Amino acid sequence: VTRPVVTLLTDFGSRDGYVGALKGAMLSQAPELRLVDVSHQIERGDVAAAAWALAQAAPHFPPHCVHLVVVDPGVGSARRALACRAGGRLYVAPDNGVLHWVLGDAPEAYALAEPDSASPVFHGRDVFGPAAARLATGSLLARFGSRVAAEELVRLPFADPERRGDCWSATVVHVDHFGNAITNLELEPDAAGVVVLTGREVPMRRTYSDVERGAPVALRGSSNTLELSCNGSSAAVALGIERGDVIVFRLG
Amino acid sequence: VTRPVVTLLTDFGSRDGYVGALKGAMLSQAPELRLVDVSHQIERGDVAAAAWALAQAAPHFPPHCVHLVVVDPGVGSARRALACRAGGRLYVAPDNGVLHWVLGDAPEAYALAEPDSASPVFHGRDVFGPAAARLATGSLLARFGSRVAAEELVRLPFADPERRGDCWSATVVHVDHFGNAITNLELEPDAAGVVVLTGREVPMRRTYSDVERGAPVALRGSSNTLELSCNGSSAAVALGIERGDVIVFRLG
Amino acid sequence: VTRPVVTLLTDFGSRDGYVGALKGAMLSQAPELRLVDVSHQIERGDVAAAAWALAQAAPHFPPHCVHLVVVDPGVGSARRALACRAGGRLYVAPDNGVLHWVLGDAPEAYALAEPDSASPVFHGRDVFGPAAARLATGSLLARFGSRVAAEELVRLPFADPERRGDCWSATVVHVDHFGNAITNLELEPDAAGVVVLTGREVPMRRTYSDVERGAPVALRGSSNTLELSCNGSSAAVALGIERGDVIVFRLG
Repeated sequence: VTRPVVTLLTDFGSRDGYVGALKGAMLSQAPELRLVDVSHQIERGDVAAAAWALAQAAPHFPPHCVHLVVVDPGVGSARRALACRAGGRLYVAPDNGVLHWVLGDAPEAYALAEPDSASPVFHGRDVFGPAAARLATGSLLARFGSRVAAEELVRLPFADPERRGDCWSATVVHVDHFGNAITNLELEPDAAGVVVLTGREVPMRRTYSDVERGAPVALRGSSNTLELSCNGSSAAVALGIERGDVIVFRLG
Repeated sequence: VTRPVVTLLTDFGSRDGYVGALKGAMLSQAPELRLVDVSHQIERGDVAAAAWALAQAAPHFPPHCVHLVVVDPGVGSARRALACRAGGRLYVAPDNGVLHWVLGDAPEAYALAEPDSASPVFHGRDVFGPAAARLATGSLLARFGSRVAAEELVRLPFADPERRGDCWSATVVHVDHFGNAITNLELEPDAAGVVVLTGREVPMRRTYSDVERGAPVALRGSSNTLELSCNGSSAAVALGIERGDVIVFRLG
Repeated sequence: VTRPVVTLLTDFGSRDGYVGALKGAMLSQAPELRLVDVSHQIERGDVAAAAWALAQAAPHFPPHCVHLVVVDPGVGSARRALACRAGGRLYVAPDNGVLHWVLGDAPEAYALAEPDSASPVFHGRDVFGPAAARLATGSLLARFGSRVAAEELVRLPFADPERRGDCWSATVVHVDHFGNAITNLELEPDAAGVVVLTGREVPMRRTYSDVERGAPVALRGSSNTLELSCNGSSAAVALGIERGDVIVFRLG
């Protein structure tokens, strides 16, 4: 029998005791839990970065795992806390857009009640963590609170990719640790074309090392979307790209 | 049966192999151990930061867990190495003040012997880690070495909170990753008042988002002590507060 | 029965979802795996730093553990992917020098096949991780691909220590998080002497605190090689030493 798994994604940083307090609260609730760190280094309050990280990680775990996200700048305010099943996977997170990329078509979401004993400044430890532990150890999702309609759930404001003639406009939805600028335009494995930036065209290749060191390259990233990279350095810095920028991809 | 748990709190950083060496030594001692990372990012040699992180984390774990701390600027010197039961919990750490907040009234502490084979520069791997592994897997605390009297244990030099009339003076004992300045003044859930800083008064509220973005706020933090925060930014930077500063809290 | 263990050493950083994707892919392959983080903070593409971290960590783990390294600037290029037994331990890593310090005399290495479905930019998730999971759960090493001769494996270009009269020249092979400059000159426990740097001699002592705060000291480090340190600060900064520098050690 495999023990229940909860993955952890927070902006708690790693030089305080907050990660420890969260893990302790979860193990006190369910001592047999396996805790798998995804990241505690999300930039403080950066919901969009956490949303993308979650979307990269969650689909690769076995379906019985629970994915806990605590990037929660609105802690203690009226924002909802959620337990949710979406795309066959289970999530516990604030309702602030962090589930944007994983909600899919028919998310089944419930608003968590806030226990009287919860600290108004640390719902990770006192609300989200214990809920994730209970969910992972078999509590029924529908018991977690009142149902929230899918259309009421908070989403991120990124524009969908758009086609005009032989061009696609795509939005940069994440800049990763390596400086890769990742868009929301899904590509087929054999996609070909160029990214058109002010005054230059960036060719599409298969992998980083298909161009010279330091040269920019467009490629199909590890989540199958269009990505701008530089071999061995930061494309975001070299090309002056930020999250939210719209770039144009001309089909080959 | 739940497997034995050791939590890890160090200043080893996370770009060398020291964390791995420590974990390996512990699993070699007791392969069934569960290792739970609290932090390896404590500032190099910052005993006070580690002490506060430990105090935030340890109370939330099940009581059978062992809490290992290796922030040990005096490694290889005459400072004692300890195995300790305090407040119903088990600790292994250097005797340098890192247990300050968890010692409580009647700590039962033993000085660990240093094996001849131990590297004088890596007691984490060769002394503390193996001791924590043995303690977690059932070795009796009293077998670990000679008893150390509670009053001989090293403490941190923070002044206790002090009341004068309707004012409390409190010491900032930690500045966290979010820039929250945390004091040692314990508050009741319904405490009200203002923090008096040079030239300004900071109101007491329930949570961060009860004030405007960027505004300072006093609140009862997640460890039930007085805390100064800014909604969405660093209070320590905005208010010029450092660890060790004394602030005045006027009861509401 | 102890569950299979895989240790993880990458340059993925900890603010994206890449670590999570890797862990998820491994748990999907083998849900009973125990995953032990060594580091995900290796500098981007710094193969030599990863190689040293691996050499510090791996020898302390029980021999049945598998050590996975994904610091892979050549991902998707013609560089080989390896599964390897060396010194009685098991490794999965790119063939780029990252196994330099652990290969020993008679490594038994096999070139991993790249599945058609693998993303050309994320072999960690799609090639190395699943291979490590299979190896840890009992797949036979010889089944992983075609044998690679030991002399074909990529090594790092560090010069071996060299003796001239009563002096040794040693190469700095790593500068750690604390600023310690670590060389490849192995020392006996009772070694004595001085390190000769431009214009000064650094004495050999037993541990950091055997010299005054801020003073430089030579010592036998935790991996039994000559190391230059400063008590409480960075020797690399104070002495202007970088990885690759050659220093001279005069026997006592």
